[in-house]
Amino acid sequence: LSEGGIVGELPGEFALIARHFRPLAGPEALGLGDDAAVMTAPAGRQLVIAADAMVAGVHFLPDDPADLVARKLLRTNLSDLAAMGATPLGYLMTISVPLDTPDGWFANFAAGLAVDQAVFGLSLLGGDTTSTPGPISLSLTILGTVAPGTALRRSGARAGDGIWVSGSIGDGALGLLAAKGELADADGYLAGRYRVPQPRLALGQRLHGIARAAMDVSDGLVQDLGHLCRAGGLSAEIEAGAVPLSPQARVAGMLPLCLTGGDDYELLFAVPSAREAALRDAAAQAGIPVTRIGHFHAGPPVVVVRATDGSEMTVGSGGWSHFR
Amino acid sequence: LSEGGIVGELPGEFALIARHFRPLAGPEALGLGDDAAVMTAPAGRQLVIAADAMVAGVHFLPDDPADLVARKLLRTNLSDLAAMGATPLGYLMTISVPLDTPDGWFANFAAGLAVDQAVFGLSLLGGDTTSTPGPISLSLTILGTVAPGTALRRSGARAGDGIWVSGSIGDGALGLLAAKGELADADGYLAGRYRVPQPRLALGQRLHGIARAAMDVSDGLVQDLGHLCRAGGLSAEIEAGAVPLSPQARVAGMLPLCLTGGDDYELLFAVPSAREAALRDAAAQAGIPVTRIGHFHAGPPVVVVRATDGSEMTVGSGGWSHFR
Repeated sequence: LSEGGIVGELPGEFALIARHFRPLAGPEALGLGDDAAVMTAPAGRQLVIAADAMVAGVHFLPDDPADLVARKLLRTNLSDLAAMGATPLGYLMTISVPLDTPDGWFANFAAGLAVDQAVFGLSLLGGDTTSTPGPISLSLTILGTVAPGTALRRSGARAGDGIWVSGSIGDGALGLLAAKGELADADGYLAGRYRVPQPRLALGQRLHGIARAAMDVSDGLVQDLGHLCRAGGLSAEIEAGAVPLSPQARVAGMLPLCLTGGDDYELLFAVPSAREAALRDAAAQAGIPVTRIGHFHAGPPVVVVRATDGSEMTVGSGGWSHFR
Repeated sequence: LSEGGIVGELPGEFALIARHFRPLAGPEALGLGDDAAVMTAPAGRQLVIAADAMVAGVHFLPDDPADLVARKLLRTNLSDLAAMGATPLGYLMTISVPLDTPDGWFANFAAGLAVDQAVFGLSLLGGDTTSTPGPISLSLTILGTVAPGTALRRSGARAGDGIWVSGSIGDGALGLLAAKGELADADGYLAGRYRVPQPRLALGQRLHGIARAAMDVSDGLVQDLGHLCRAGGLSAEIEAGAVPLSPQARVAGMLPLCLTGGDDYELLFAVPSAREAALRDAAAQAGIPVTRIGHFHAGPPVVVVRATDGSEMTVGSGGWSHFR
């Protein structure tokens, strides 16, 4: 427009944000055009905030469709809200991708977010888009709310409490094998469970006053149950035969992997027997099956897995940890 | 502890978090042992939230000391709060690092965060630590607060308003050259400005009622001024000779780079002439120098840079964008 001046054209990064991400933004995001979002926290609620990262080749397969990657990123974070009994409010996201990432990747990525924003009722508040010389690296911070004092915690289980899980266990780990072509998955169910987990928000929101402790199963049932044990100062004993498996997981017949593999995103929680009727009501209202798989006991923070014949199964130290 | 059972030992990832990051956590973080943080938003304040990512080799040098990397990560986000006039509250962080990252790296990284948590008065609320097969990828989400309705915005400048900057411009871009050994930097000042930016919180917090529009300069003065122009529907004209340079930048004599390079993290804002006395008072209280470098005018969103002789300088389309 002016010789020697700077034409008022958006550089690529900003055009990209305007094209793909601005349509996802809530009013608090100020059109993603300011340095930060400004919001008034809902009156009479506490904020619940969590952040999770996902890296290509670690948390998803490099050739996974971008819309499913986006939905997994959002859903793993929503699962943290579910574990706290919270209601989603919004999220911020940072995306680091190679410079040659095609525009279609961003379009698909944003389309996946749009689907799940509608499903779960939240909007984009802000974030950052940068280049990386390495694999795609994603980070999402999620905000939710709870009524004051009602957030579910990992601590609080007591000896005698039942150990419960939602849904089915092991599909995520089997689904990773299936997605890599290492396990038959005729109907695509297992790969789907790996790629698009199901955050159990409707159940988590009904567990206040019922569950004494809760968390989501992201690193493997046995390892995550160990966290509840340490947080509560208790032992846990579960019956392998009671752990709910999907029909597809039963066919696969890899029980030890189901018990220790990651990516389930089911809820794991402690319920005293006197509240089991209330739990069944809550689960029915949420439309999410729940299963008692064992009990907590007084003792050191140890997870014992019993086979059908009553013997102790050796399932390894189990579970996913990035740094050993 | 129990044959065949799972010993209650923390896997490496969790031990690492407990060792290095739990000491940084505020009470809302619940010891970093739950799925999310729970906090009550400060009464009578609005929340201000932003997120920025940093990738080794893009935003910092792969061999930069970990404590300085951590401080830059925190400070670039604090600069976003400064640009909104907000007061820091807390942050969440995700860290993706190679599996062979030594424990000392985490110790140094956490030590850097501890220093700046004390300087800026905020604490760690949560996050995630994962492995990556690629370069270190960091993401930080920062929370701050403002009195309702007082957040500074990029829109709002009017024709005739002065264009102001804090501190000095160009040190960040020169500092990157210095840090790479491509520019003399006898006293280390320039590299220090690149590695440890100075978020101008004390100034930003005093600009409500004084600045009509504000942002921080992170992608280069000329490009970022273009954002204020687009947000306000205005042209901008600045005098190159009025742009404040540090003595070290004057010696370097690379004015075009100073005007277009990134990583300044100074504030850029619009002030009507009637409020200049109030601005000087605010700047004196904050202990941060401010300089008028030009004016906004009615017209298309163009940034004109005038040389000392009044001619238009050609400074290129300028500024850092990840995707063109």
